Amino acid sequence: MALIVQKYGGSSVADAERIRNVAKHIAEAWDEGNQMVVVISAMGDTTDNLIELAYNVTEHPDSRELDVLLSTGEIVSSTLLAIALKSMGYEAISLSGAQAGIRTDASFSRARILKIDPKRVLKELKRGKIVIVAGFQGITEEMDTTTLGRGGSDTTAVALAVALKAEMCQIYTDVEGVYTADPRLIPEAKKLSEIGYEEMLELASYGAKVMHPRAVELGELFNMPIWVASSFTHSPGTLIHGGASMEIRNKARAVAYDLNVAKITVVGVPDRPGIAAAIFEPLAQAGISIDTIVQNASIENITDLTFTVAKGDLDKAMKVVEPIAKSIGARECAADAKLGKVSVIGTGMQNAPGYAVRMFSALSQEGINIHLITTSEIRITCIIDEARVKDAVRTLHQAFELEEEE
Amino acid sequence: MALIVQKYGGSSVADAERIRNVAKHIAEAWDEGNQMVVVISAMGDTTDNLIELAYNVTEHPDSRELDVLLSTGEIVSSTLLAIALKSMGYEAISLSGAQAGIRTDASFSRARILKIDPKRVLKELKRGKIVIVAGFQGITEEMDTTTLGRGGSDTTAVALAVALKAEMCQIYTDVEGVYTADPRLIPEAKKLSEIGYEEMLELASYGAKVMHPRAVELGELFNMPIWVASSFTHSPGTLIHGGASMEIRNKARAVAYDLNVAKITVVGVPDRPGIAAAIFEPLAQAGISIDTIVQNASIENITDLTFTVAKGDLDKAMKVVEPIAKSIGARECAADAKLGKVSVIGTGMQNAPGYAVRMFSALSQEGINIHLITTSEIRITCIIDEARVKDAVRTLHQAFELEEEE
Repeated sequence: MALIVQKYGGSSVADAERIRNVAKHIAEAWDEGNQMVVVISAMGDTTDNLIELAYNVTEHPDSRELDVLLSTGEIVSSTLLAIALKSMGYEAISLSGAQAGIRTDASFSRARILKIDPKRVLKELKRGKIVIVAGFQGITEEMDTTTLGRGGSDTTAVALAVALKAEMCQIYTDVEGVYTADPRLIPEAKKLSEIGYEEMLELASYGAKVMHPRAVELGELFNMPIWVASSFTHSPGTLIHGGASMEIRNKARAVAYDLNVAKITVVGVPDRPGIAAAIFEPLAQAGISIDTIVQNASIENITDLTFTVAKGDLDKAMKVVEPIAKSIGARECAADAKLGKVSVIGTGMQNAPGYAVRMFSALSQEGINIHLITTSEIRITCIIDEARVKDAVRTLHQAFELEEEE
Repeated sequence: MALIVQKYGGSSVADAERIRNVAKHIAEAWDEGNQMVVVISAMGDTTDNLIELAYNVTEHPDSRELDVLLSTGEIVSSTLLAIALKSMGYEAISLSGAQAGIRTDASFSRARILKIDPKRVLKELKRGKIVIVAGFQGITEEMDTTTLGRGGSDTTAVALAVALKAEMCQIYTDVEGVYTADPRLIPEAKKLSEIGYEEMLELASYGAKVMHPRAVELGELFNMPIWVASSFTHSPGTLIHGGASMEIRNKARAVAYDLNVAKITVVGVPDRPGIAAAIFEPLAQAGISIDTIVQNASIENITDLTFTVAKGDLDKAMKVVEPIAKSIGARECAADAKLGKVSVIGTGMQNAPGYAVRMFSALSQEGINIHLITTSEIRITCIIDEARVKDAVRTLHQAFELEEEE
């Protein structure tokens, strides 16, 4: 008898009918002879509505209280799912994050899982129950409720799968799996039957919305196979696992894109030690995440420093950077909010320099100008004009022959 | 420094503005130098909405899961109140019933409090915090969430006040206190400045909606003063305490009424031992609460047995009783759904038979027919036609001179 951890997202449990459908989906896997632990997100817009309630009371709600408030969303959906399963004649029980033993640090709204004490989950499994766990939440040593922040329920699911030594973690969502490119943009995009952790991590970090990189990382760390599929159809999804990364395929796997990119260039920076720290330390203190950083080769000890931030952070970042630029003697600060990035990803690109050339020439043939380039071992990313991102994805998907059969 | 437990009902926290008002109300008591523990109900219609969600999934939701679901309503309101207090610069923390140490039995949807372990509450008070506790909920030995059923939040408040040895339990609601009669019905009705536990218990049990009898009983058992007032005004409320019951006032205190009364008469019952049990045991098994029971004096070993039930239970009760009546040789079963009851209550009525006469003659002068009479030491109740209940309340309020100053 295999133990499977499943996770269903908020759109899969948005109303009573969908909850009953998810219950049927779970019951099928149970009837096949599996032990089942199911992690569930809050129904549809519940979390947004709870946040609105809090902000109606005050502009700056306390983070400890906000976490307790938000955690009720997953409690509601988990009980409703257990109610649906019981009404179908299946033994089921809902557990809060606390009851499921999800111990976290006390960083409210973005807590990290410290460990999982699966005692209660194991007891209920032994009693023959389907265990429904409220995702996205945990409890501190002092028994205070926390939420895990972005990607929280995916992370709960993978972490529980690891702690319970499950055979697999299945992530059910509103897409059918991982594609060679966003299928809403590229109708010819192909669903991948499998993908390696590292490739998935790059895809998730560089724009694919299928899964949060945090949960993929956890899966990689503990080598837990993750299966991504749609809860609305029965078509086979994508297996994310370690095996795939081992073979070096002579092929790019997928194209990812992200429209949420803004660029700041500090022009004419004196090139001396400590300058980068002087600029990036205050940005970190202001809570601004920096993505790509590029520094041009220094000419006569004067250099240009360019970095990207999320569009929503651009104004705040400029306010931090401008006085610093002045104080270190830089010539000026330039901002550009209308950018996007496009990435080609695949382990097959390791040690195969031809891929970069193919990417740049495909973009150039389409008349798309490249502002910045960054690479990892298995990824090449170009930052380009926002208006050309979709053309770029289409061109690259063709150039790398991703629409062809695997 | 006195420790006060306050409780606010659902209508007091129905929206963000009211929550901020309640926060101000609490802050005032804090500023006067009190330690504060505040028990809170779910916002407005939250509980009804959660019940609807569950019944949308299935007609017979599991009771264990339903309790977890319903408990989220009070979690939401308690966090929002804590958020409001913190935004005003007061140190506050919300605790679930579980965190506040409310231990109950495992009778889901109507759990009884077994004990309170106030460790966490005391710790937070010591840290100088206003402690907001989610009402209506507790936790079993196995760490499962329960709800306390009707009157749950009032009961949480009184029980916490007892466990914390608070100076007083203050129940804030949408009425200004306990009146000599329902002020919506009798404009001359007077607010009582104080009332004894027993009198309040009879009032609450016989139709006054101010407080649930269960919470009053708990207050009486541990001699915890309960103060009932409005959260919307600053006018003085009513103190429910033991002192008042000690003096025997030569006076009725209040008139209560209840329109939810139906009567069943089993006519021509052979008067032999075991007949009452034969009728009432199956009713109890069917979960039907019996209120008043009257058996006429037996004539030639034939008697009539009359009892009252809530209107909503009448059909179900008739279905249970009719076959039994036939089997024990009774002549017939008669039902009357259009009844109500009116009660005069006061410790002054003990050992003062004149009160009953005054009540019956006042009703008779108004041409109101009495179907049944029941009494306790401090209460006389008449069951009359539903259509005459309001006239009866008006007449009795005058006859017992309740509109006069105390």
